[in-house]
Amino acid sequence: MANPEENLNPVNYEMNRIFLKIGKIQESSFKSKDGKRKTAVLLLGAGRVCYPAADLLVSSGSDSCCRFWKTFLEHYAEDWDDIEVIVASLYLKDAEEITEDFANATAVQLDVTDSEKLFMYISQVEVVISLLPPSCHLTVANACIELRKHLVTASYIDDSMSSLDEKARNAGITILGEMGLDPGIDHMLAMRMINQSHLQKKRVKSFMSYCGGIPSPESANNPLAYKFSSNLAEAIRAGSNPATYRYEGKTVKVEGKDLYDSAVRLRLPDLPAFALECIPNCNSLIYGDAYGIGHEASTIFRGTLRYEGFSEVMGTLTRIGLLDTEVHSFLRSSRRQLFRDFLLELLKIKGESKGSTIGEKDISDSIISSGLCKEQETAVRVAKTIVYLGLHEPTEIPSSCQSAFDVTCHRMEERLSYLKNEQDMVLLHHEIQVESADGQHTECRKATLLEFGRTWNGKTTSAMALTVGIPTAIGALLLLTNKIKTRGVLRPIEPEVHNPALDLLQAYGFKLIETVEF
Amino acid sequence: MANPEENLNPVNYEMNRIFLKIGKIQESSFKSKDGKRKTAVLLLGAGRVCYPAADLLVSSGSDSCCRFWKTFLEHYAEDWDDIEVIVASLYLKDAEEITEDFANATAVQLDVTDSEKLFMYISQVEVVISLLPPSCHLTVANACIELRKHLVTASYIDDSMSSLDEKARNAGITILGEMGLDPGIDHMLAMRMINQSHLQKKRVKSFMSYCGGIPSPESANNPLAYKFSSNLAEAIRAGSNPATYRYEGKTVKVEGKDLYDSAVRLRLPDLPAFALECIPNCNSLIYGDAYGIGHEASTIFRGTLRYEGFSEVMGTLTRIGLLDTEVHSFLRSSRRQLFRDFLLELLKIKGESKGSTIGEKDISDSIISSGLCKEQETAVRVAKTIVYLGLHEPTEIPSSCQSAFDVTCHRMEERLSYLKNEQDMVLLHHEIQVESADGQHTECRKATLLEFGRTWNGKTTSAMALTVGIPTAIGALLLLTNKIKTRGVLRPIEPEVHNPALDLLQAYGFKLIETVEF
Repeated sequence: MANPEENLNPVNYEMNRIFLKIGKIQESSFKSKDGKRKTAVLLLGAGRVCYPAADLLVSSGSDSCCRFWKTFLEHYAEDWDDIEVIVASLYLKDAEEITEDFANATAVQLDVTDSEKLFMYISQVEVVISLLPPSCHLTVANACIELRKHLVTASYIDDSMSSLDEKARNAGITILGEMGLDPGIDHMLAMRMINQSHLQKKRVKSFMSYCGGIPSPESANNPLAYKFSSNLAEAIRAGSNPATYRYEGKTVKVEGKDLYDSAVRLRLPDLPAFALECIPNCNSLIYGDAYGIGHEASTIFRGTLRYEGFSEVMGTLTRIGLLDTEVHSFLRSSRRQLFRDFLLELLKIKGESKGSTIGEKDISDSIISSGLCKEQETAVRVAKTIVYLGLHEPTEIPSSCQSAFDVTCHRMEERLSYLKNEQDMVLLHHEIQVESADGQHTECRKATLLEFGRTWNGKTTSAMALTVGIPTAIGALLLLTNKIKTRGVLRPIEPEVHNPALDLLQAYGFKLIETVEF
Repeated sequence: MANPEENLNPVNYEMNRIFLKIGKIQESSFKSKDGKRKTAVLLLGAGRVCYPAADLLVSSGSDSCCRFWKTFLEHYAEDWDDIEVIVASLYLKDAEEITEDFANATAVQLDVTDSEKLFMYISQVEVVISLLPPSCHLTVANACIELRKHLVTASYIDDSMSSLDEKARNAGITILGEMGLDPGIDHMLAMRMINQSHLQKKRVKSFMSYCGGIPSPESANNPLAYKFSSNLAEAIRAGSNPATYRYEGKTVKVEGKDLYDSAVRLRLPDLPAFALECIPNCNSLIYGDAYGIGHEASTIFRGTLRYEGFSEVMGTLTRIGLLDTEVHSFLRSSRRQLFRDFLLELLKIKGESKGSTIGEKDISDSIISSGLCKEQETAVRVAKTIVYLGLHEPTEIPSSCQSAFDVTCHRMEERLSYLKNEQDMVLLHHEIQVESADGQHTECRKATLLEFGRTWNGKTTSAMALTVGIPTAIGALLLLTNKIKTRGVLRPIEPEVHNPALDLLQAYGFKLIETVEF
């Protein structure tokens, strides 16, 4: 655990000097009543994920995370100081919106490229949690190594981050990455099952994993059965990522353009009310190696969860051309075009219909007759989606839209956002088939996480923010209490991380269900 | 509206005398601060439905139903006294559990067959809400007629109740029945759509209606995708009711034994995340007459909603014999039998397997090989259900179980009940196809109610209790404020009832969604 006395090293001394000079943080807020320095955590980035992480860290002793702290204090830290949190954001207002609810939190303005300020704030804490975009992590990690402070992120550990392993070890710090949901809780649940099987000398023959951030069923109240909470364009682009997986010994590759067509219906036997489907998720094979089952598992599959029909609709929208990213000549003219006319152009509906009203039936008939989809039911649902998005309306397309993709994203942003009181949902489900050493006995192990957005302190926190933010906060706590002793670059694949982390996630109230069927 | 001065009629005078003699209710609690008598409502029956009804009635001015009361006071009653509620139950404790949360509520013990006491309590109020079993309503209704007090129930108006129409009119009171969910809100939503269509001189060609009280998707966490909140045996017996409906001009009759097999997959286009199915619900044709569309609609269908697969599993359990209601010879022996051995007996698995362990695979294999179901997927799900219920366990069947039905119900009661924090859900969906007078234009009108159980005052109220209880309370309020002027026996089929009632249900926060598609 980072020792507060490390703050006396030269760099920190310099930073403390700068800190005192700038004086932006009232130093008094970092002293507890008895004048002792409090434990402090720096949260970089004041997006949605920050709130639940900050709430957990500062709520020790409060009712809101009561069960969590009871477990924590009983099993992980008998004596424990309150934590001070510094929330740093490019825009002070964003940070203040988070800290206003908490007595032990301070908001500060920080541009991470301003290394003087970055060093100053890092020097004030024991652990840094970076919730910034992945491209910023390297800057933060290098500063953490220099100042000998632990770092937690929820992002994938890429090669550049891995290459810091030795430096981090030499500095005596831990860089704990992939500590969110996916990556994060997915690793934890998978590795606990796999390790338990391996300890019993059993082989993992099949690993199937599904994860999705989707609307709660009642909030999936549109024909696409989907809503976007952030990064809409990025989420849609992910729909054309190629995928690779292994199924019953054979490697299957899916090209990006075929991804939606490769979706399959999925029912979870323990949660049969959800009408789900899954789409292969990027390269599943790397998980074979990461989880140490690459040589023994004949099936390794990771899929993205959506509600049934989503992929058929998205696939058809793609074929119509509504997701083309190239600049479209129709949109380049100086005259503003109408959504309806652009739709007629894409559907190649010419002549007298142009300029007239186009309705759901016209659209579905056109989709069927032009062979863009085979099933009548799908065509109707696609038409309903187009109408829901208002892509048939005689209103002007904004000049910012240069491509069909821009047009569709614009409408999706307007009409597929969560309204107040609508909840998102996170569903993560692993299933492994395990064989005894003699090949005589098999068992099926399952692990499921099902979380919904929550409203507290009058603020709604999405399930996605919760399941990413809480693991990062738990990572920080495990580092502060020296429960994670390994130094260097680390992932929750290690039992040292995932065993206590899963314990604490459960204490926090996450519904983690693990079963074994023989 | 019943006039408080009516209390001076001879019967009431007598009852007041008895009341004063018994003195069980402190009279002071029925006077407001200025000594004026308060408006009072008698709630008969202290089951689950009572709590939300009592809460709504006594919460005028409180925050809990703030929006409701704002709407109510603005549109229905400018000056308004607080309401006193008397909750009467056979067991005083049940009534007290409800009233303990409310300042304006009194709990009393009452056996409705004790007419002296019944008359006494009715004489103290302006409106009676009977939440008792339907068989008690006639006694209550006759007392209400005699004492000239309005009555509201959530039960079907049967012939005996209808026959009180003239008496009720002569007494100047309204008996408002079918004021719950189904019957109740279903009538209201249907009639508002139908009346609007008829006012526009349009014909209703098709009426399709679906309603179900089922677990919320996350609480449907078992292979049957169903849970029971009460009246389990009754709910299961409803699975063998015959059904009649009209589909595209033809009358379709389904025998009770074929009911589960007649279930069909159902997706609501606006709520596509729910994996639903529907089962024909009793005689749909009577709704054609009740709603005044019997002569014009070629399709009239009412179905019960379940999650997909429920009927296949229940149908197979029926074929196995697990729902047979006759006394079973195997269970009649003086020696206590084991669940496992009874299952082996029903599955006709003999010989050496008897007495040994029976697992999911043995069960599904047996089901397939004996032709009890055709699909492997169904057989597996049935086997999972049997295992989930513990019908394969080597533990003793209680002596109270005389039939297979008793055995299955016993296990279902144990293992398919709602746990704390698990929510139920009510989903009601109507769709009507409407044709213009000249037959040239059609439109589709839809109305949907989706409600989940709620927790407040630390008590969980099921969606079912809420959607039955709140309409009864609203019925009482509409009678108290003289918004319902018609006297005699009445249903919410009348615009005088359903127009204000739907308005108030929405103000209460029920998610009623009405759409028209052209």
